[in-house]
Amino acid sequence: MRAEVVAVGTELLLGQVVDTNSAWIGERLALCGIDCHFQTRVGDNVGRIAAALRAAVERSEAVIVCGGLGPTPDDLTREAIALVMNVPLRHDAAVMEAIKKRFVPRGPSRAMPASNARQAEVPEGATVIPQTLGTAPGLICPLGDKVIYALPGVPYEMHDMMERAVLADLRRRSGQAAVIRSRTLKTWGYTESALAERVAGRVEALEAGGPGVPTIAFLASGMEGIKIRLTVKAPDEQTADKALDTEEAELRALLGDTVFGVDDETMESVVGRLLAERGWHLGIAESLTGGLVAARLVAVPGASEWFRGAVVAYAAAVKRSVLGVSGGPVVTAEAAAAMAEGARHVLGSEVGLATTGVAGPTEEEGRPVGTVFAGFALPGSVPDAVGLRLPGDRARVRQLATISALDILRRRLLELPGHDGLPS
Amino acid sequence: MRAEVVAVGTELLLGQVVDTNSAWIGERLALCGIDCHFQTRVGDNVGRIAAALRAAVERSEAVIVCGGLGPTPDDLTREAIALVMNVPLRHDAAVMEAIKKRFVPRGPSRAMPASNARQAEVPEGATVIPQTLGTAPGLICPLGDKVIYALPGVPYEMHDMMERAVLADLRRRSGQAAVIRSRTLKTWGYTESALAERVAGRVEALEAGGPGVPTIAFLASGMEGIKIRLTVKAPDEQTADKALDTEEAELRALLGDTVFGVDDETMESVVGRLLAERGWHLGIAESLTGGLVAARLVAVPGASEWFRGAVVAYAAAVKRSVLGVSGGPVVTAEAAAAMAEGARHVLGSEVGLATTGVAGPTEEEGRPVGTVFAGFALPGSVPDAVGLRLPGDRARVRQLATISALDILRRRLLELPGHDGLPS
Repeated sequence: MRAEVVAVGTELLLGQVVDTNSAWIGERLALCGIDCHFQTRVGDNVGRIAAALRAAVERSEAVIVCGGLGPTPDDLTREAIALVMNVPLRHDAAVMEAIKKRFVPRGPSRAMPASNARQAEVPEGATVIPQTLGTAPGLICPLGDKVIYALPGVPYEMHDMMERAVLADLRRRSGQAAVIRSRTLKTWGYTESALAERVAGRVEALEAGGPGVPTIAFLASGMEGIKIRLTVKAPDEQTADKALDTEEAELRALLGDTVFGVDDETMESVVGRLLAERGWHLGIAESLTGGLVAARLVAVPGASEWFRGAVVAYAAAVKRSVLGVSGGPVVTAEAAAAMAEGARHVLGSEVGLATTGVAGPTEEEGRPVGTVFAGFALPGSVPDAVGLRLPGDRARVRQLATISALDILRRRLLELPGHDGLPS
Repeated sequence: MRAEVVAVGTELLLGQVVDTNSAWIGERLALCGIDCHFQTRVGDNVGRIAAALRAAVERSEAVIVCGGLGPTPDDLTREAIALVMNVPLRHDAAVMEAIKKRFVPRGPSRAMPASNARQAEVPEGATVIPQTLGTAPGLICPLGDKVIYALPGVPYEMHDMMERAVLADLRRRSGQAAVIRSRTLKTWGYTESALAERVAGRVEALEAGGPGVPTIAFLASGMEGIKIRLTVKAPDEQTADKALDTEEAELRALLGDTVFGVDDETMESVVGRLLAERGWHLGIAESLTGGLVAARLVAVPGASEWFRGAVVAYAAAVKRSVLGVSGGPVVTAEAAAAMAEGARHVLGSEVGLATTGVAGPTEEEGRPVGTVFAGFALPGSVPDAVGLRLPGDRARVRQLATISALDILRRRLLELPGHDGLPS
């Protein structure tokens, strides 16, 4: 089965918004074993949207069109689909009710604007995908034995409808019996080429392929390290999972604790788990990362069990007055260690983690841009720090400092006596 | 003149790499006054690349194809162009020499791999765009009075060839003297449909169009509010800018201070500018936003001039011990105001801003998910707070609380006596 993606929006063509939706949909389709040979972007023009849809329907069995379902006059996807289906638009009273309801809970000042009524227009013969998050409903539009799915362009609304309605419908239509399962090992510490060299033997071993043999792919994820994705096609989930387990063990034997997590695990969720295992709490002191470490940690569900808070000591004076760092330079290992100890003390936590350094654009205290120290303070040992030299501009140095500091704390927690040494 | 973009690479379809090249090219084309109606992504398959190119050449006068010029067997753009031109590939000795030379300066260990010879294959009749940064040369391939430009997929190599060779050639071919200019007004506070209704008169006024009349488009930008994009085609930059100035003034008259910035301005950069204008510094106390407010602020260049730091008081005990919030519930307007005052005090700043609330997944202190209070403390007035009810899941509530809190501070700063009341 082949599916195509059509992303609608003049803003995409003008480069004002980067089309990340198509990439996301492409990945999901691949994981379902559905081929995607073309993706098209088209502007807010009803004739051209219809032309793009017609070309896509000609080449493929399913088309996912994304965007142009809003209430404004330049939202024309509904009209274009009706043209391609050669049917009129009908007013759907149930959709109208659902849209109206979304405006009610916030009181009379949030009465539904009249323009939202356009969102209740549905091509004759189409099925509605009810909206749970936004106001634009999705559409399933049959064309003979083919289908067009229309989804909102807002990513989180689109993701929701894809997961909830489209993928299941696609799977049913494709009659695909085999399951395709994927597992992603997340690594931090290797460059892409060094990682490839380290696991070259496994790549070779898997190359021959065959039923039940996983394929392997490396995905450089910028600030988040390098992911290794294993994908396997098998008659059932158990067989697939077993093949993935075996290969994961092979890779872990080669990569050790540079593998920090699997699938949905993140550096911060792993740090949280390691803290929770000991019943410890974490306090943070941030200078150059300016709140990024804390923001990542609180995004972990259940963070309140092990996270106390942070002091963002952006001004040097705050490092001294709040964290008790003594006078002198603050881009040093000593200052980082003192900040970590200060965070522990001020925030009342067992563990302290700190970042200080030079994000740029210019050097500070005679230290070049990219100089970073991560300080840590743990029960039963003297506060200490690790120095790093990170590449990139201001934003990149900050992001790399954030994940590096979390990785340093992860390794320290793994090294402590009493831990079995296994990353998970 | 119309141009299209074809991005080549199976990794784009699989979602392993997001296609940012097309957005970048689209923006450059728009600024040169060249229309771009379609962009296509296609995998590493010679027949499908050729099909995508044929469709693009049929619709448009120029096609920019990006990627698939490398040395590996899955780099097939050269072959596909030769098919579309219906010509053979010839070996270009001069290109070969240039490629070989790139391997010499790095010593014998960097001898040219034999596969690089493929990069010297050129469709008969095509002109080479010499490479300055990488090994893949670009191509200018005439088809009657139309043209296909082939560029490498590596962004910095592609940018170089676009700027150096393609845009000039396109301008020459189009004989286009007109410029297209764009301006984006950023708003916070209206829903998309309410905004559309508010400016419906302007939309109607511009609808007739004509030379020098801007077009208007609304871009919902999720957490960042709604953008209004004005685009105008005019004989020169001055005329274009004047038309944009006039329309911007019309829109501002309707939208008032819901317009928080223009083009590259962000909510945080505007807050920073308003603080800097008064020589004030900001201290933050964050509960549910957990560092997100601080992280956005430190991303503004020059933030150290007006940002002191933050206390992320995730645990209620930290709100009391560090910020001096008194006992009792912490998801209240009183607690938010006390946190803002505490931040001012602890961080030694003139202005304090605070967030507290319920990000979810479950209610807290009997308050439903999405309940948020933004507290603020400014010189010469009693600390106060604004209550909000924000929609969405944990991540969304946090993001919305972050920008909402910044917006509340922005409005407070604009309202102060001594400010002229204009957002910029």
